[in-house]
Order: sequence, then structure tokens, then C-alpha cells
Amino acid sequence: MGVLSPKLYPEGVQWDTGFASDAEDIVMHESDPAETHDGPHGYISNGYISNKDAYLKRLRRIEGQARGLQGMVTDDKYCIDILTQISAMTSALESVALGLLDDHLNHCVLHAAMAGGAEAEAKLQEASAAIARLVRS
Amino acid sequence: MGVLSPKLYPEGVQWDTGFASDAEDIVMHESDPAETHDGPHGYISNGYISNKDAYLKRLRRIEGQARGLQGMVTDDKYCIDILTQISAMTSALESVALGLLDDHLNHCVLHAAMAGGAEAEAKLQEASAAIARLVRS
Amino acid sequence: MGVLSPKLYPEGVQWDTGFASDAEDIVMHESDPAETHDGPHGYISNGYISNKDAYLKRLRRIEGQARGLQGMVTDDKYCIDILTQISAMTSALESVALGLLDDHLNHCVLHAAMAGGAEAEAKLQEASAAIARLVRS
Amino acid sequence: MGVLSPKLYPEGVQWDTGFASDAEDIVMHESDPAETHDGPHGYISNGYISNKDAYLKRLRRIEGQARGLQGMVTDDKYCIDILTQISAMTSALESVALGLLDDHLNHCVLHAAMAGGAEAEAKLQEASAAIARLVRS
Repeated sequence: MGVLSPKLYPEGVQWDTGFASDAEDIVMHESDPAETHDGPHGYISNGYISNKDAYLKRLRRIEGQARGLQGMVTDDKYCIDILTQISAMTSALESVALGLLDDHLNHCVLHAAMAGGAEAEAKLQEASAAIARLVRS
Repeated sequence: MGVLSPKLYPEGVQWDTGFASDAEDIVMHESDPAETHDGPHGYISNGYISNKDAYLKRLRRIEGQARGLQGMVTDDKYCIDILTQISAMTSALESVALGLLDDHLNHCVLHAAMAGGAEAEAKLQEASAAIARLVRS
Repeated sequence: MGVLSPKLYPEGVQWDTGFASDAEDIVMHESDPAETHDGPHGYISNGYISNKDAYLKRLRRIEGQARGLQGMVTDDKYCIDILTQISAMTSALESVALGLLDDHLNHCVLHAAMAGGAEAEAKLQEASAAIARLVRS
Repeated sequence: MGVLSPKLYPEGVQWDTGFASDAEDIVMHESDPAETHDGPHGYISNGYISNKDAYLKRLRRIEGQARGLQGMVTDDKYCIDILTQISAMTSALESVALGLLDDHLNHCVLHAAMAGGAEAEAKLQEASAAIARLVRS
């Protein structure tokens, strides 16, 4: 099958890195008065994720991209085009991670910091380790 | 649902970054005498991907991870655990990209270089641009 | 000048990525009772950096590496060896950044969180933005 | 010393990431008829680096940034500002690496590919390994 054939790939495949255009559906944290934190540790309660639907929508699209990549490999699509897709998918994942981390800092870490003591220290160490994994991955 | 509940996630979810252990299924290029290149430009022919099944297996697992992440978000799993999964998934994608790029250099770019001239130059520019996107994404 | 000539480069140049071995001189935060925070905003006061001498030592080494790279370019050293040095230098910079970010979370952000209100929110937004720049750079 | 004091830092310090503006001094490869390759292996000969002065200028600036960072740490500058500088420096290093890699592909790797055989294979493996280090660092 030639490079120019009009075969359609699943929803996740797109031929440019146009993900930036909908990055706005996950906004960095602003105050969110309706959130609830009723768990004993403040972090297993529902609602720490600011906009669950936006994350699910992003992740479904990322799943579609992973499926689309399989079609591209099966059809021997041009390697550079596959790599472009992977770069876009990596950036999309990174945005999801940064959004979740921002939510985490604004809920779990903030509440632990207010409580102070060993819990605050533990939450901050854990967050630092997660940030280091993101920076290095 | 609590953090400790034994709910099972789809195949993609795992709680550590144990992906390194099966990184060997995509090997960096060594000589591959059976490959065929019958296309006029050397890059749309079948077979430039060294081990298609290994890539498809990796991509199916990445797709499963994307699905697993949706379950984690839906169930309000602990944010740090979700971030750990995303770091693992990013590393897995990176490995796929590096394997494909290695295949590309060893087939399309090598053949274009042997042919020389404008085609060689174009292929090298295109490869450099793809590498830059990978490094920066 | 050949690749194998014994020419000595300034202190920063080393031919492997052995930086990991002294990564321990900047430790991630643990409690630090002697620190002082007398500034009105908690972040311009002296002492928020946990171990200034360790950072200065790391940065002097990074400066030496940058100087060494100039010698390598001037002498037409083999490109792959220069790239190896740059990868090592990037990792060293990343470690410095992660250490400073950890200090920042454990001092400025923690204190702002305890104070609460708009100051806490502003500090967290600022930290998130800095993390995003690190992840994407 | 306060954040707002007008103290001047060495040449490398700048308060924004304005490096992009002079990224053009290292151009990605185009044909370069004046280059010479007289070494037996094609890669230790002078001239494989397309524009040595541009690289040296970039590296001197990076060295100045490393020196400037030491001043910022010594003076307890605000952590977020130091991190911004490090992100800029990392991006500048990345650009140098991508430029050198492009030169390398267009000279050493291209020539080895034309010669073919084991030398071509070795050069491509070496380039792939260097790319993987850059992507992961």
C-alpha cells in the first residue's frame, strides 16, 4: 500500500501534531470551591482530579493514537510519519501528566502542607520523586 | 472505591515501571539479509520495519496502558500511581520510537545515502528533523 | 590531531557519563531545623537552598564541561564523543534543577501553603509552570 | 540581598529564555562544497563541523550561563528564576547537540554509508546509540 493511499485510520491518528489546539480542555488549577475531601488522608477522596471528563477524553484519544500506530506499522507506513505520531502522542501524555501533577499539588500536597508534620514531608518527597520521573522519562 | 481494593485493571496497567524487562523484543539493527526493498524509492516497500510483530506487541501493550489509565482516573486512583504509569508509558513509547528510527536509518537513509545526490540530502534532513522532534517532545 | 592523542582538556571534560557517582552530594530534602526564614514572603530570605556548597560545586563542574566542549570543538574531536559529553552535561543540569525544585517545594511552597490563601495558590501555580518548563525542555 | 537589587551577573545570565532568537546561527545542514575530508576514516579529518565559530559562540554563552547560575545560587536568588535559567540552558545545549548530530549524519555517516559494509553498519549503530542517549537525557 502506497504512502498516498486514502486509507482511514482510527480516530487517534492524525498527521500533524495538532494536539496543542485542544490542550485548553485541561486547565491548570484555579480555585475550585465545589471540591470535596472527606477521606481520612485527604487523597483518596473523590474529586481531587479537577476535571475528570477532560482527562478521560484526552486518554481516549491517546488510546486511539496507540491503535492507529498499530495500523500504521501493519501497513508499513512511512517511518517518519509514524515517528511524528509518536512525538505527538508523547506530548499529549506529558500534558496529561502535568495537569494531574498540578491537581495533585493543589489538593493532596496543599492539604498535607496545611496539616504539617511528617505527613507534609512525606507528600512532598513523594511529589519530588514523581516530578523527577517525569523529567527523566 | 479505596486505594487498596483489589479491582483488576486491563492488561496495560501495572504498578511498577517494569517495562525495561521486555525491551529486548525490539533489538537495535543488525544485518538482516532477508529483507526486501523493491519500491522505487526504497522506503515504501514492505519490510523496512525489522520486526513488525515485536512493534505490534509493544503498541498493543501501550494501548492497554492508555485504557488502564482511563480506569484509574474513573476510579480516582491515587495521583502519584497514575503519574508512575504515565512515566512508564512514555518510556515505552520512546523505546518504540528509537527502534523505528534505528530501522529507518539502516534502511531508507542508508539506501538513499548509497544512491547519493539530492535524495540522500533530503532523507538526512528529514531524519534530523524527526530526531529533533523526539529530543524535544 | 588524532582522536587518540593524550591532550588534556579542562576539568570539565570526562569521557564517560560518570556523573551519577557524585549525585549524592545534593540530597533530596529532609528536615532541616537550622534553616531561617525571616523575609516577609518566606522566599527571599537566605537559606532556602539546602546545601549551597554542593550546588556550587556541581555548577563549577558544569561550567568546566562547557569549557571542555569548546576545546573539543576547536580540536575537531569525534562528534559522538562531544555528544556523549553533552548528554552527561544535560543530565547534570537536570539533577541540579530537580534538587533546587525539591528545596523550593520544601521551603517556599510549604510555607506559602501553611499560610494559605492567594499566596499559596500563586506559589503552586508558579511551581507548576516551572515543572512544565523542566519536563518540556 | 533582595530579588529586586540591580546586581549585574556575568554575560550568561538573562532573565528570560530568549535563546530561540539566535538559534539561527547554527543552521541545519545544507550542501557545503568547501569541506575537506582527507582522513582515512572520514571522521577525524578537520571540517566535519559545519560552522565551528557558531558552535564556539554558543558554547561560550552556555559557559557564561553556568557561571551566572553560580552567582544566582551564591546570592540566594529566587529559586524559580534559577530554574528558568536552567531550562534555557538545557534547551541551548540540546540545540548544540542536534546541530552537531546533523553535521555528523551529513558527513561521517553519509560517507560511511557510501563506502558500505561493516563501516557503514558500525557508524549507524553508533549514531543510533547517541540519539538514544540524547532522547533519554
